[in-house]
Parts: sequence; C-alpha cells; structure tokens
Amino acid sequence: MSKTEWRVGVAGLGTVGGGLLNFLAEAPDFAPAGGRAVVTGVSARSRSRPRPFDISNLPWFDDPVALATSPDNDIFVELIGGSDGPAKAAVEAALNAGKPVVTANKALIAEHGAELAALAEAKGVPLLFEAAVMGGTPAVKMLREAMVGDDVKSVAGILNGTCNYILSEMDSGGRSFADVLSEAQRLGYAEADPTMDVGGFDAAHKISILAALAFGCAPNYAAAEIEGIDQVALLDIQLAKDLGYKIKLIASADRSEEGVLVRVHPTLVAQNHPLAQAGGALNALFIEGIRIGRIFIQGPGAGSGPTAAAVAADIADVMTRAARPVFQRPAAVLTPFVPIDPARSTTRAYLRFLVKDEPGVIAAVSETLAGAGVSIESFLQKPVENADGVPIVLTTHAVAEAVLTAAIDQIASLPAVLDRPRLLRIART
Amino acid sequence: MSKTEWRVGVAGLGTVGGGLLNFLAEAPDFAPAGGRAVVTGVSARSRSRPRPFDISNLPWFDDPVALATSPDNDIFVELIGGSDGPAKAAVEAALNAGKPVVTANKALIAEHGAELAALAEAKGVPLLFEAAVMGGTPAVKMLREAMVGDDVKSVAGILNGTCNYILSEMDSGGRSFADVLSEAQRLGYAEADPTMDVGGFDAAHKISILAALAFGCAPNYAAAEIEGIDQVALLDIQLAKDLGYKIKLIASADRSEEGVLVRVHPTLVAQNHPLAQAGGALNALFIEGIRIGRIFIQGPGAGSGPTAAAVAADIADVMTRAARPVFQRPAAVLTPFVPIDPARSTTRAYLRFLVKDEPGVIAAVSETLAGAGVSIESFLQKPVENADGVPIVLTTHAVAEAVLTAAIDQIASLPAVLDRPRLLRIART
Repeated sequence: MSKTEWRVGVAGLGTVGGGLLNFLAEAPDFAPAGGRAVVTGVSARSRSRPRPFDISNLPWFDDPVALATSPDNDIFVELIGGSDGPAKAAVEAALNAGKPVVTANKALIAEHGAELAALAEAKGVPLLFEAAVMGGTPAVKMLREAMVGDDVKSVAGILNGTCNYILSEMDSGGRSFADVLSEAQRLGYAEADPTMDVGGFDAAHKISILAALAFGCAPNYAAAEIEGIDQVALLDIQLAKDLGYKIKLIASADRSEEGVLVRVHPTLVAQNHPLAQAGGALNALFIEGIRIGRIFIQGPGAGSGPTAAAVAADIADVMTRAARPVFQRPAAVLTPFVPIDPARSTTRAYLRFLVKDEPGVIAAVSETLAGAGVSIESFLQKPVENADGVPIVLTTHAVAEAVLTAAIDQIASLPAVLDRPRLLRIART
Repeated sequence: MSKTEWRVGVAGLGTVGGGLLNFLAEAPDFAPAGGRAVVTGVSARSRSRPRPFDISNLPWFDDPVALATSPDNDIFVELIGGSDGPAKAAVEAALNAGKPVVTANKALIAEHGAELAALAEAKGVPLLFEAAVMGGTPAVKMLREAMVGDDVKSVAGILNGTCNYILSEMDSGGRSFADVLSEAQRLGYAEADPTMDVGGFDAAHKISILAALAFGCAPNYAAAEIEGIDQVALLDIQLAKDLGYKIKLIASADRSEEGVLVRVHPTLVAQNHPLAQAGGALNALFIEGIRIGRIFIQGPGAGSGPTAAAVAADIADVMTRAARPVFQRPAAVLTPFVPIDPARSTTRAYLRFLVKDEPGVIAAVSETLAGAGVSIESFLQKPVENADGVPIVLTTHAVAEAVLTAAIDQIASLPAVLDRPRLLRIART
C-alpha cells in the first residue's frame, strides 16, 4: 500500500502549530520516504484569535476530537498540551480511529504514556513524541532507536530552557530569582503562571519519558522526586561559583539492580563540565550506556522552529511505516519502573547555613558532621555583610542521603547555628 | 509477513565483529520490534587466527560473497573494511540477493554510496551504516531521520579518534607528533600504517557521508579537500595555546547557494568551544540547521563496544521494516554535490613563520598583508630559542582564501622572512 499524500490534522495553534503550518506549506515534500504532507484540518480554542499565520483556507474544527476522527486526515498532530482534557481525549480518539499520532505533549506521555502506547500498538499505529523532550534535539529518537544495542545506566541533563535561562541570568547578572523571573515573563520566556517550569514539573515530565525509553519500562511520573529552582538563592549561585561550580536544574534517571531513581533538583555542576557550559535556554543531556559509554547531546529545547522541525521529523517517520513499539518494549510487557527510595542513594552535598560569629562554631559543626558519618570535602567562610550571622558553606564527600538528612537535623539543632542548612546536591563528574 | 527469527551473517571478525558476536549471543532478543537476531554464518580472512571469542560453533564461509548470498541468512553485516575488493563485492552480492545490509565501512559508503543506494532501493532492502561514522554516537541516524524537518547548513566536527588522541597528547605532554604516534602504535591506538588516520582520509570519508545525509546529495569523496595532522608541529600547538586555541583535526561540510565545501584540516578552535574540549579519542559534531539552530553531539568514535552497539541498532532498525531511502532522497534523484572552489571561501587564519631578528621586519610584514587586503587580528612574537631566526605568529580577520594565499606568497618572498608561512585555519565560533 503506497500513499503519496498524507493528510495531516493539527490541533493546537500556538507557536509550534504555527511553525508546523508554515513549514508544511513551504515544504510539503520534505519527507525522504517520498510522501507529501498536506494540512487538511486545524483546531484550536479560538478560531478568530489573531495569529501571525493564515488559517482562513484550512478546514476548521471547534472540537479536536472531531478533527482527530475526521475521515479527511491520515495523521493527527496534537499540540494542545496538558496531561488530560481535550489533548488526551483527542489523542485517544485518533488512535481508536486507527490513525498515527504525533504529539509534543510531555505531560500526556509522562502521565498516560503506557496506556496510550497499549492503545496505539493494539491499533497498529505509531505514537511519536520527539518534540515532547528537548524540542528540536532528538533525545527521544536517540534513546528509542540508537541506544537499543546497549544497556543504558543513566540519563542526566538540563531539560527545561526557562529554568536554565533564569539560572544563567542570575549567575551572569547577579540578580535574584524574582527579578529575573519577572523579566523573563515580560519577554515571553516564562509563562504567566511559571509553576510548571520553575517548580521542576516540566523537567520531571521529560525525564520520566526519557527514563522509560532508556530502561525499557513505562513512564512513572508519580515516582519522580521533584524540587524546582524557586528556592535557589543568588547567594548560593555566588558561593557555588567560588567553589568552582554552577547551579543547574538537573533532571536525572539512574538505574540499578534495585530499581530506578528519577529526580529533578537544583544541582552544583563543576564549571568545566559540559552541563555547566550549556547556558541560556539550551538543553543538554548525558546518556551513559554500559557498551557505548557516555554520549552528550546539546541543542535548543524549545521555540517554534526547532519544535516544529521535531514534529515534522515524526511525520516523516510515520511515512516510513516502521513497526516498532512506542517505548523500548511492547506495551503488553511494559511495567512501571520500581522507584528507589532516594534516602538510600548517595550524593555529594553542598550545605549553606548561618552561624553566630563566635569561637568554636566551626569545630562544633565539624564534630557534629564527623559524628554523623559525613566527611567534609571543603569549607568556605566568606565575609558577607549580614547582621544576622556569618554564612558558612561546606561540601561533603559522597554520603547516603539518609545519613546526610540526619546530620542536617543535628546541625540545625546546634545553639550556634541560626537556620536550617540549605542542601544542594553536587553532580557526579 | 511476520518473522520472529532474523538470521545474521557476519563478514569480518575484528574487534567490532567480536563485539557484535558477543552481544548477539548475550542478548539475541534485544530489538524492540520483537525479532530475534541469531548469527548463522561468519567469514574472515583466516579461520584459525586466535581470537578472544569463540567461532567454532558458527558456520564458516571462506568467501564473504558466499556468506552474503547464502540462503541461510536474512541480514548481511559487512565488517571487512576497504572501499573495494571483498567488502564491496559481498555488499553488492547481498543487495542483489535482496538482503538488508548493515555495514561499518566508511570508505565503501563514501566512495560507492550512491551506486549501492540505487541497488538497495531497486531491491527494496535497507542499507544501513550507523557504525561508519562516530562509532556508537548516532550521527547518521540524526542527520538521516531527525533533521529532515530542517535544512542543514553545515556540519563540522572531530571524526577521527586517533588524530584527536595524538593532538591531545601532543598538547598535554608537550611531545612531538612522531613521538606520540609511535607510542599510539605501540598501544594499539594507531595502525601500523597510520596514513588513513593521520593523513585525514578517514575523517574525509566520514564527513563525505555526513555531507550527503545533511544536504540530500550523493557522497562526493573525490571533491573533499584533505590535510592531515602529520605536519602539525608541537610549536604550533604551543603558540596556539598562547593565543587561546587548541589545534583539532576538523572535518566540515558547508552548503551555500553555489554548492558544498567539504574539507578536513588541522584547525585552531577557541579553548572554550565544545570542540576544543573534546579530548582524548572522543568524537564530536556540530550540526547547524536553519530552523533548529545548532545541535552538538559527542561520544566515543570507535572501540568494540560502541561500534558493535551501533551495528546492533541498525539490525534492530532492519526489523522495523521502515521504508526510507538510503540517503536523504531516493537514489534515483541523488546527485553528487557541486564542490565549491576552496579559494573562494573565507576563513580566519593563523600564520607562523621565521624572520630575521632585525628592525623593520614586523612593519614590512604588516604592510605586505595590508597591501594584499589581509587584516591582522593579533600579533605574537615569542622569545623562542632558535638560532635560525625569530618565530612570528599572527592571526587574521576573515579573508578570502585566494587573497590569503597570494599574501602568503608575498610574505614568503620578503628578504627578512626565512621560510614559507605555515597556514592553519581558525574555526568559526
């Protein structure tokens, strides 16, 4: 069965939808496999909203489900967003109608990926989501296809461009989180409600998807441990710099015999590490396999052009009629990974806290940490203008998180310690 | 047509072949699409040669062509190497027999890729070669599949691990090319005849393949401009370091409206550039597209594990029965790219030469360059022990190569200049 024209229905007409419409209008014959992609229907919340691209000649659907099931299209592209609601309903409807689906929706795949994969495989159609992670940088294809001759041990990287932009600006401009965030909102780099980004949830959706592809299991977003950047103080960025680190929001997934640990948190990364050097709104990822070793990939994680290009590449993949499971294994044998209790993992740590400016304090802190089993790697006391006390920073050697937490409790209870120590983890090199 | 067992014939039993045999013995069910890969025949130059893996239970073929056409296998894997001879004969025979072919042979694909693609597409079978470029790092899949929603403008990177190792060791150890090469040969990092690597020919094969995938044309190895690292002096590495650069063997392909320029040459790369930081035997590549922007990918470019993993990923791709052209376009419409005369390209340059230690020399050189239309960016005269004259180094702003060459001729003819200036190009940032 050869088909020269693939009729594409596009639901969601934001910047990515607009980029895709422009691209397919300019280059309908872009796909190497030789098919022609023509947009034959669009849907969005408002038909009349002003847009920088023309939709007047395209068949309009008020209801994305009606577009998804319309006999006038062969591929359904979902760019609505959101883990539930119309996006999920439309994707399910398209799959049920036996149509290939391409989506950029990380929340949907992270939270409902396994059940949607089962539906797609039952219907024998592809469900592709390259644009859901790292925009135009093909992390999904790499893990789903290029790494199958290896066993991936870990993936770790910078998956949220908004957070990376904010942290980079705080670092280079010496400005507070709140300052940079409000500027980013003014410039359109951050949403009016920035919670999904700065709270770490967007990065957690993405790393949950990558973990599933890397380890051959179902996404398990509920098991992700998530800490955003909204509590990152400028002081920590500056002190980390003095110690030779940058603070980045790192999303990571590590597999061991016991299970999988998926987490997102602000992390100290050594300044000469490639992840520390990915500035601005870049995304970057390390993939480590037992045979291949470490692969690093970096590129733009968002934006109309890159993300639309990723959607287009998925449309081209649909045209190859490749038959493969949605994740690494058929949905029928896909199980959620077993989460590891983070308290059982080990980490190097950065601790910052205020102490009274009096003799014996450092000795008391050092003894407390030693007694708790935490080994100090470096100690930094900086003369900072602070009437409330003297800030102390220390870094530790690798230690079990449960031990670390207990030690922090003990330090916080010392009379000379004025606040609860701020904990940031330090990335492995 | 569903097939649960894919019988694999493997020709060439070096380190990659051994890695593949071990992997398929351990994990025959690795492929997500669900097929089982079983080695059902092997071929190599000598059956009795001692090997660190067991082939005694595998059907042996003296002639790789006989293995390629044997009715007892479904996929032919070519790991023999070489652009012609038995490798080409066996690949042609397998394709003619209607069998999918997976190869790691960059010389074969760079020099005969278009005709082999035509044969594969006429027979309706895939011809895959992920392992031919960057070993386990999936540059081929990225350009062939993930970038099809974009127009790639340029690819540039480090594609030969042996050269990168030698240059890195010269830099870190302050040792000469000859010293490091002989050590690398002793350690098995370089071949007894190192010409393919250090002469830049291996990198040229690889960039010719990437250029074809990036720009939708046939490989045109004959048009590549090639300079190796065998003339890189330790002095240049040290002077480049003083100027803030590392010297790397950069393979690049640039597309413009006039055509394509493919070249390999030792290049100064700014020390904070990701390509400068890819040390040891790493490979690294920038891909720049008009929509996606710049993507960077880095990983191991050789070795048994990574390369065998790339071959295995291609075998898994065969099992998906994806139907796509071998390069970016069907072989029927694939034409070799039009090479651009390098003299018409522009570059920033590093020039190093010896001058007599007498007044007025720098003025004479500066005036000569200014008269020729070359603008100097920086000038460095280092006190180096050298009875024969004083080494002078300068870097230029971007200038047409033809202008640069004419200027070098003029400088060489100045009475105070004692040798022909050594030209190295400086990478764009």
